[in-house]
Amino acid sequence: MKIFTYWRSLATFRVRMALNLKNLKAEEIEVDLSAGHQMKPEFAAINPMKAIPVFIDDDGTTLHQSLPIMEYLDERYPDPALMPRDPAGRARVRALAQMTVADSHPLVVPRVRADLASRFGATPEQVTRWAQTWLIAGLDAYETTLKRDKETGDFCHGNAITIADICLVSHAAGTRFFEGTIDGHPTVKRIVERCLADERIARAHPLRQPGAPKSV
Amino acid sequence: MKIFTYWRSLATFRVRMALNLKNLKAEEIEVDLSAGHQMKPEFAAINPMKAIPVFIDDDGTTLHQSLPIMEYLDERYPDPALMPRDPAGRARVRALAQMTVADSHPLVVPRVRADLASRFGATPEQVTRWAQTWLIAGLDAYETTLKRDKETGDFCHGNAITIADICLVSHAAGTRFFEGTIDGHPTVKRIVERCLADERIARAHPLRQPGAPKSV
Repeated sequence: MKIFTYWRSLATFRVRMALNLKNLKAEEIEVDLSAGHQMKPEFAAINPMKAIPVFIDDDGTTLHQSLPIMEYLDERYPDPALMPRDPAGRARVRALAQMTVADSHPLVVPRVRADLASRFGATPEQVTRWAQTWLIAGLDAYETTLKRDKETGDFCHGNAITIADICLVSHAAGTRFFEGTIDGHPTVKRIVERCLADERIARAHPLRQPGAPKSV
Repeated sequence: MKIFTYWRSLATFRVRMALNLKNLKAEEIEVDLSAGHQMKPEFAAINPMKAIPVFIDDDGTTLHQSLPIMEYLDERYPDPALMPRDPAGRARVRALAQMTVADSHPLVVPRVRADLASRFGATPEQVTRWAQTWLIAGLDAYETTLKRDKETGDFCHGNAITIADICLVSHAAGTRFFEGTIDGHPTVKRIVERCLADERIARAHPLRQPGAPKSV
């Protein structure tokens, strides 16, 4: 197994958590996003979306997009399960995941931040505020949903870690990257802290990867 | 079954296609996105993410996010299948879907377009060009992937309609909304036209919904 990775990539962080939770080891191949190496033709040939993670299974199956990769891992290596078994529960977990993966994270990725600067002359401070806006909107939606739903337990969905928790933890890390905090979102904070107490999640954190700074 | 809908919503278009393909009928409840009705407290109580679609099954199960709703429909009402059966195929279909649902569409939704105007003073023309940029980046990635992969057939994945096709058709409609075209993307165009020849897909199109203009 191989995974194309970069310390700061929140989407790759999600796949690292899933791999660790399933006790799978993947060789890591760095793609330096800060240097724009995801735009190189040789990487675009692997993933035309020019983004990481890319995951290659032992049989050569090559996958991209964090959520499809995690669902694949859960189908191929089902123990421990990262998804509930009932269709309604699965839909709830997937919707919680999409609140990060679709509604929040795509607005703060490098290509978008760079575009705001070049297209609208956004300053670094304006770009940070832009990112905060969407990450906090996501946190607000998470907090309301998690606080409201009877399905919420120790984790986002019951008392076992699911893909929803993985996405929430990556959302919290992203919030920190853009000078934000989850302190104002108590249910989110409780679940994120519970997750990070699990070493399989903690050691996947961006700040514990090769090349990462000590703090952000 | 009920679905909260609006003629222009690309995410709701996706769920309408899935419902039609499975021959399911849902009562439609309009949420006027142009008037910002998704921001009303009574709707935010239903979906804290303040977005449509929201789908309510006959047993009261309430779901949001187009992709989780479609996967739920496919699990609950499996015939005809909208997903392949093998994990690698499922991951490929989900990744193709995410190229619209995560990488492209979230950048052109109403809240983001409104924010560009208020935050950076973007003109309507600049907002249209912004939307074109991300939709065309998505089309480029689709074209490269679909042309390259041996799994591509009459449709995105083999010779039956999957969730990937549904997302691609919505991407094409979105491209049109922002004065773009899929004419420069021949594999995309072939598949989209093949899909739209199916009346179950064609009659779900935004321009055939109540309240829609004759063209955009």
